[in-house]
Amino acid sequence: MHLSFVEAVDSMGTIRNFLFIMCDQLRADYLSCNGHAQLDTPHIDALASRGVNFTRAYCQSPVCGPSRMSFYTGRYMFCHGATWNNVPLSVGEWTMGDYLRPQGLRTVLVGKTHMRADDAGMARLEIAPVSPLGVRVSQCGFEPYERDDGLHPDQSADPHLAYNRYLREQGYDSDNPWHDFANAVEGPNGEVLSGWHMRNAHLPARVAEKDSETAYMTNRAMAFIREAGDAPWCLHLSYIKPHWPYIAPAPYRDLYGGQHVVPVNRLASELDDPHPVVAAFMQHEESRSFQRDDVRHHVIPAYMALVKQIDDHIGRLLQFLQAQGRLDDTMIVFTSDHGDYLGDHWLGEKELFHEASVRLPLLVYDPDAAADATRGTTDDRLVEAIDVLPTFLDALGADLHPHRLEGRSLLPLIRPGGIVDTWRDAAFSELDYAFRPARLDLGRAPHEARAFMVRTADWKYIFYEHYRPQLFDLRADPEECHDLGSSPVYAAVRAELHERLFTWLRTRRTRTTVSDPAVAQRTATARHRGILIGVW
Amino acid sequence: MHLSFVEAVDSMGTIRNFLFIMCDQLRADYLSCNGHAQLDTPHIDALASRGVNFTRAYCQSPVCGPSRMSFYTGRYMFCHGATWNNVPLSVGEWTMGDYLRPQGLRTVLVGKTHMRADDAGMARLEIAPVSPLGVRVSQCGFEPYERDDGLHPDQSADPHLAYNRYLREQGYDSDNPWHDFANAVEGPNGEVLSGWHMRNAHLPARVAEKDSETAYMTNRAMAFIREAGDAPWCLHLSYIKPHWPYIAPAPYRDLYGGQHVVPVNRLASELDDPHPVVAAFMQHEESRSFQRDDVRHHVIPAYMALVKQIDDHIGRLLQFLQAQGRLDDTMIVFTSDHGDYLGDHWLGEKELFHEASVRLPLLVYDPDAAADATRGTTDDRLVEAIDVLPTFLDALGADLHPHRLEGRSLLPLIRPGGIVDTWRDAAFSELDYAFRPARLDLGRAPHEARAFMVRTADWKYIFYEHYRPQLFDLRADPEECHDLGSSPVYAAVRAELHERLFTWLRTRRTRTTVSDPAVAQRTATARHRGILIGVW
Repeated sequence: MHLSFVEAVDSMGTIRNFLFIMCDQLRADYLSCNGHAQLDTPHIDALASRGVNFTRAYCQSPVCGPSRMSFYTGRYMFCHGATWNNVPLSVGEWTMGDYLRPQGLRTVLVGKTHMRADDAGMARLEIAPVSPLGVRVSQCGFEPYERDDGLHPDQSADPHLAYNRYLREQGYDSDNPWHDFANAVEGPNGEVLSGWHMRNAHLPARVAEKDSETAYMTNRAMAFIREAGDAPWCLHLSYIKPHWPYIAPAPYRDLYGGQHVVPVNRLASELDDPHPVVAAFMQHEESRSFQRDDVRHHVIPAYMALVKQIDDHIGRLLQFLQAQGRLDDTMIVFTSDHGDYLGDHWLGEKELFHEASVRLPLLVYDPDAAADATRGTTDDRLVEAIDVLPTFLDALGADLHPHRLEGRSLLPLIRPGGIVDTWRDAAFSELDYAFRPARLDLGRAPHEARAFMVRTADWKYIFYEHYRPQLFDLRADPEECHDLGSSPVYAAVRAELHERLFTWLRTRRTRTTVSDPAVAQRTATARHRGILIGVW
Repeated sequence: MHLSFVEAVDSMGTIRNFLFIMCDQLRADYLSCNGHAQLDTPHIDALASRGVNFTRAYCQSPVCGPSRMSFYTGRYMFCHGATWNNVPLSVGEWTMGDYLRPQGLRTVLVGKTHMRADDAGMARLEIAPVSPLGVRVSQCGFEPYERDDGLHPDQSADPHLAYNRYLREQGYDSDNPWHDFANAVEGPNGEVLSGWHMRNAHLPARVAEKDSETAYMTNRAMAFIREAGDAPWCLHLSYIKPHWPYIAPAPYRDLYGGQHVVPVNRLASELDDPHPVVAAFMQHEESRSFQRDDVRHHVIPAYMALVKQIDDHIGRLLQFLQAQGRLDDTMIVFTSDHGDYLGDHWLGEKELFHEASVRLPLLVYDPDAAADATRGTTDDRLVEAIDVLPTFLDALGADLHPHRLEGRSLLPLIRPGGIVDTWRDAAFSELDYAFRPARLDLGRAPHEARAFMVRTADWKYIFYEHYRPQLFDLRADPEECHDLGSSPVYAAVRAELHERLFTWLRTRRTRTTVSDPAVAQRTATARHRGILIGVW
């Protein structure tokens, strides 16, 4: 399985396809190419060794739905407006498929998007949800080759879920085998124990590895690629794991135990007078659970197993691409929607802006010979999730739509022949925690639960509505354990970063229906169109 | 003609209809109810005497298109994104008609909107421009009973323009009688002189008053009201005047001469080291023209004549409404899209944020008995154009959609029985001058040409990208002739208002697809939906 595509790729070509792989909740530092001390991910590392590993990549919101909508729209979260999970993306927002389809690419989804359709917006525009257009805008612009958001509690499981149909065909007899087999384990007396409870994460899934979600979605991706043949495509392969339920199949589950869990990144002093919003998140159940070492030692090995499993399937997929001749003409992006605190800073899950949560793994493999000089390099310039879509367009030589897309093409970084005059010197991320218990604990109205992060090379400043900011000195304190948000010593630093946030908000892409060149072409031409303004 | 509806209205009723009258480029202070010393507008004054006169009302951008889109969407300019004339309003934006039609109201346009259809957005959503839906979204949600944007240079005049057809039927023989008759005058030798040139503004239009644009649009409004009968409606009667071409018909043109022109509001000191953006606007042709006293004395009487003419037609319309029994169940709003510098501050036209440009006339007549206590009063609380739509919805008892609509209902101010706990203490306006020669003179890219105004009871602060701000002390200097934008004495005031702008940008309504109550209902209910987050 480790036959590497590194040696195999020798004829580089022009990009025709994009394989846009996203994991869910994969921490950037849970890959061996990003320094994990216990987890070996050779296939993902091989991708890094053939491409560029962006080590300071940031999501636009550390929450599944809004982060993904930023990837898909190329816009910051409070611009696209889908600010939390299940907040519909307005039907008026342009998405990846809207940009790539006119370039001749089938733009296809296999896996998760967390898109909620804008039913009211569609009704207003008389778009039938079941029409081809209705399906497309409901799937944020993707052709849903296999849509599966990966969370199927019995209360709301779709009876027609394809993965459940598949599992039943394999003999997993249940109304909801997603839960009862793929995300459940067997107790000592043969009883079914739910993966919803982290206490069960030490046992292997009741599903065979070959039938697990990661294996199944990889198969579906390969089925699409095979089916597509020589027609160009963009395939968004969007794995559900290592997101909870933290249930991994055998043999992966048994690869890791408590002894493989790397030390938690937290200090007792972080509990002394924490920031009010952080303190409220520390009271969330996921935080209280992950504050316990026994939970961490129980769950993190399962998380690692899920990552390891993904790595092997990435290897399988790359071998398949090679066999199909697609490694010469396919750009591959490997990333995640956000990270996972796993107990760092006394927190669980994500949402807040520590690196464990907001930083992304981001590997880009570009088959073009112009990228040879950067193969196997890391790049620590500040990169954002919204850069992926402009990178794709740039690779096709298409217009980057900079009046609407707020990211920047990474191509000048990957193919350094070009001139990168000035790269961004700050990355931004946003949060709407209106839907979370923390807001209730803090006694805030839904519209008051907003936070904004700006991260420069040296500093991270986090502004919270109604509360003091946070500030981290990333040079002196890369672990972000010392919050300087109320230290008088750093008032000037905070003021400067505060102004950076303001500048950024003022200058976002808000005139989305006319491009800058079109503006320039029209400026001061009223007279030619016969409109005389103020002429004596 | 002066038989006033003031005495005539005695039975007040429940609101079923809205008459939303907008003038174009009517300065707030060019009405006798707002203190004009030479211009008598008794009919508009009568409306004020039966309603509330909001004396500190502000447009969201002092430019036709973006200001109107804010009225129609209820959203700030950089939220709706139609930031200048002919910048399309995204097909995804909800408009007045989308809110009022479900309440059972025909929502109809007679006159100007300055809407440019979002052709690309419509194509993306497969909306045929000629379909009923396509027409509606192309007309920013209005049923175009009579759409006429009022500027028809020969180079682009629609050959099917209804007003031109009407004029030809009346015997005005021309391909473009809008220009050749309604907006042209006759020279001493019978030659046709174009209204595009302000030098011709001293002569009366070549059209009979009864066939002028103001008379025609008033007739069309009455035709609609008659046709609508007892079915409820919202009629947006949107006059093209007193916007240029500054051509008024007889007998109005002859009512005013240079002796009626009120003193210009400017100081020579304003030319000493003016703000760079203001200085660039001072170089525009409209500013250079209006800097000349002879131009002002030539043109302003025509402007006054156009206002006077509108006033008489408002009187005619109110009499008609009374005769139709509609004064009992119709809320009437009278306003403008912005003002007109007319030479004040050495400027012409609008766009910048002095009161002459950014302040609106805003009169609201509410037939409900609950409004009796405020009839004939003025209200100097800070009001914005985006308040009109929420006011309409409130009058119907409908949802105010506060997750999308950024304005506030004026009803609690008009019907003071309710509690107005806290009214806004600042009004905001925005500018994108990308399309203007000033940008070229300043050497700025299109996306750099932005400015933002915040106006409190005491201060007006204007932030320009790349330039120092402006600051006016509205108590000491209501004429806004002393720019304190670089005075060290006022640094603290500027800093506070600067932060106000930032706060406002951060807290705008950007989660437009889910209401706050829906958020509240969903907060922390994941568990009930079967999703267990971080449960041990």
